[in-house]
Amino acid sequence: MTMRNTCRDDFPALRREIDGQPISYLDNGATTLKPRSVIQAVTDYYETNGANIHRGKHRLSEEASDAYEASRTVIARHISAAANEVVLLRNTSEALNLVAGGLGLDPDASIVGCLDAHHSQMLPWRRVGRLDLTRVDSHGRLDRDHFRELLRGRPKVVALTHCSNVTGVIHPVADLIAEVRAACDATIVLDAAQSLPHQRINVRELDVDFMAFSMHKMLGPTGVGCLFGRSELLAELRPLSVGGGMVDWVDLDGSVDRRIPFKFETGTPAIASIIGSAAAIRYLEALDGPQTHQHAQDLCAALVDGALARPRVNLIGPPDQTDRIALATLRLESAVPAGEVARLLSDSYGYMVRSGHMCAQPLVTELAGGETLRVSAYLYNEVSEIEGFYQALDELLSWMAPVAVAARR
Amino acid sequence: MTMRNTCRDDFPALRREIDGQPISYLDNGATTLKPRSVIQAVTDYYETNGANIHRGKHRLSEEASDAYEASRTVIARHISAAANEVVLLRNTSEALNLVAGGLGLDPDASIVGCLDAHHSQMLPWRRVGRLDLTRVDSHGRLDRDHFRELLRGRPKVVALTHCSNVTGVIHPVADLIAEVRAACDATIVLDAAQSLPHQRINVRELDVDFMAFSMHKMLGPTGVGCLFGRSELLAELRPLSVGGGMVDWVDLDGSVDRRIPFKFETGTPAIASIIGSAAAIRYLEALDGPQTHQHAQDLCAALVDGALARPRVNLIGPPDQTDRIALATLRLESAVPAGEVARLLSDSYGYMVRSGHMCAQPLVTELAGGETLRVSAYLYNEVSEIEGFYQALDELLSWMAPVAVAARR
Repeated sequence: MTMRNTCRDDFPALRREIDGQPISYLDNGATTLKPRSVIQAVTDYYETNGANIHRGKHRLSEEASDAYEASRTVIARHISAAANEVVLLRNTSEALNLVAGGLGLDPDASIVGCLDAHHSQMLPWRRVGRLDLTRVDSHGRLDRDHFRELLRGRPKVVALTHCSNVTGVIHPVADLIAEVRAACDATIVLDAAQSLPHQRINVRELDVDFMAFSMHKMLGPTGVGCLFGRSELLAELRPLSVGGGMVDWVDLDGSVDRRIPFKFETGTPAIASIIGSAAAIRYLEALDGPQTHQHAQDLCAALVDGALARPRVNLIGPPDQTDRIALATLRLESAVPAGEVARLLSDSYGYMVRSGHMCAQPLVTELAGGETLRVSAYLYNEVSEIEGFYQALDELLSWMAPVAVAARR
Repeated sequence: MTMRNTCRDDFPALRREIDGQPISYLDNGATTLKPRSVIQAVTDYYETNGANIHRGKHRLSEEASDAYEASRTVIARHISAAANEVVLLRNTSEALNLVAGGLGLDPDASIVGCLDAHHSQMLPWRRVGRLDLTRVDSHGRLDRDHFRELLRGRPKVVALTHCSNVTGVIHPVADLIAEVRAACDATIVLDAAQSLPHQRINVRELDVDFMAFSMHKMLGPTGVGCLFGRSELLAELRPLSVGGGMVDWVDLDGSVDRRIPFKFETGTPAIASIIGSAAAIRYLEALDGPQTHQHAQDLCAALVDGALARPRVNLIGPPDQTDRIALATLRLESAVPAGEVARLLSDSYGYMVRSGHMCAQPLVTELAGGETLRVSAYLYNEVSEIEGFYQALDELLSWMAPVAVAARR
């Protein structure tokens, strides 16, 4: 139970101290730290190769291309997709923009989204159609009746969020997708940025049309996001950018696009970071197992229980651990500014947590009414860190909101 | 003259051998190798920080944000721009697509380009308007009369290429821009991907509106390209992607974009690679000086003279070193396939050079009539490598095209 999490040794950044005090990184919903094997994969490419891909017949270029494509295959296998169904981009936001912009929707096309969507699964759809957001209840669970009602409008697209980055709720997407399939012929686009780091997803079984996720949120280098798309849909999708590397032929009259996924990858990609992404997937897959799942549940329990035990914080999300990731968003007593608390937790106690609207402002406004504090754990975190975080928060709140404290006494 | 180029020691990939033979990297037009300081900057971020930027108030996030923005400032200063005029993207292609898609042109808007443009400075414009290409002469120099004639059509955009990645010709962009300004009120968009690695550019003096370039072609990490835009024009430009990180406010009715340059940087960027880009600029600036310029001229002379001395290769580009970078594109005797030559040069001799249409097929078709071989040098290359390359090419051609040889005898 109190055994030290041995994988911590693989993450050099966890040795980081601030003013002689070890840090506790609890901002994993924003991005995760990187294990040594990922950093080494990036360095190896730069130190022993460095060439561009797909553009030359020389040995270094072929090697780089092979490593790049092997990385795509590793990512594709992780989600049970074919390699040509995985487009390598910068982040989830770009992937979702590519789909929204590329489907060729009519400006008045009906799109069903969800109130707890990240801005990146909301704003791109608003640009291209008429977006209706499915309501959530006071705990952030989807209003299934409202969802069904919206489906009756026969939307062209249903933009789902697998796991909210605010409430940590994992929505029952398999059920939701079945409902969509039964109700209409909408294209189903899933934002899996917050779920895939915590659970395996089989895109075939899930029957999703497009799925976006970010490698940097699952131990991979920064600057890599992916779009899965069913091959026949990817083939129809319009590229966001055109230019070098994505065409087979160009003459004075026109050009012929390369086949999928290359027609979406214009210009020189983030070769090193994409090669490093395969190392991240390998690391995650090697750790996958009952012990890691139990550890995630322990972290989640500590986060939820810690919040529920404190009258001075409000947990934004369900008051239980069912179908949620190890993430807790807290609304502090009204007099206490979340940003300042985050800064003090970092500088005085070494806890790195996030504050603000979490790029999901409509939901945060609805459920919390203002800025929040988010604590998000990952496989290298310890339950003792969560406990320490709450103790530090107690201490801070006791002197930051003396009026509120006095009132309660 | 034969003194060893000491900066070579800074590039670990130059120690690479193939089958016990040292390599010679001459594909710098595609991408450059990375010095140790750049690789170290990337590693340092991952090993001592790893947090996301602009999204948190905690120390690691603030540190990462500071490093990220400091990198932007270093890049901006390098081209004499303000920091908020530099958008950090994936590559030159993305930068040019952002401008082309973001200007809001009418579908029949007139755009003047150039035949020697890279596909990335051609295809994005074809998507959004009516593109006319300025002709080039048989050496790849711009047809100035034709350019003036096209300007008389009062184009909305003039899309210039500073340096051709096929001919190596550096066009007189200052003169061209003066002509544009005198003739019409077109927006001037410069592709500087092949020029900025070889010469300083002052965007104010040049009076350019937008300029795109790639850090990975100037010693920086892969996956970083930049767009410079005059602030008042950037402010009007429509983002290519929308979502997290690029808005100040989102509610159920709409959203408010952040100020420039942030409104163009949706989602988590390539933080590590962008931090590494500053190290690349610092390295380049430290080396900048008469000796480096002389070395570049020596490399250019060796490339041009070597081609001109060989009757069996055709130099695609001017037969002199005036206003060109150290790059030579060669058309081989018709019976000899360039791709196979590139492969043999690599595997049997260790010379990494590029073959094909160089992502500039209309020009290559016009000037060469088919696939070519491109040799492009950079500051770590030696004149002796160019000489060695030509000797290897002689040897290969002598047995690959015996018929042609016999005919000549």
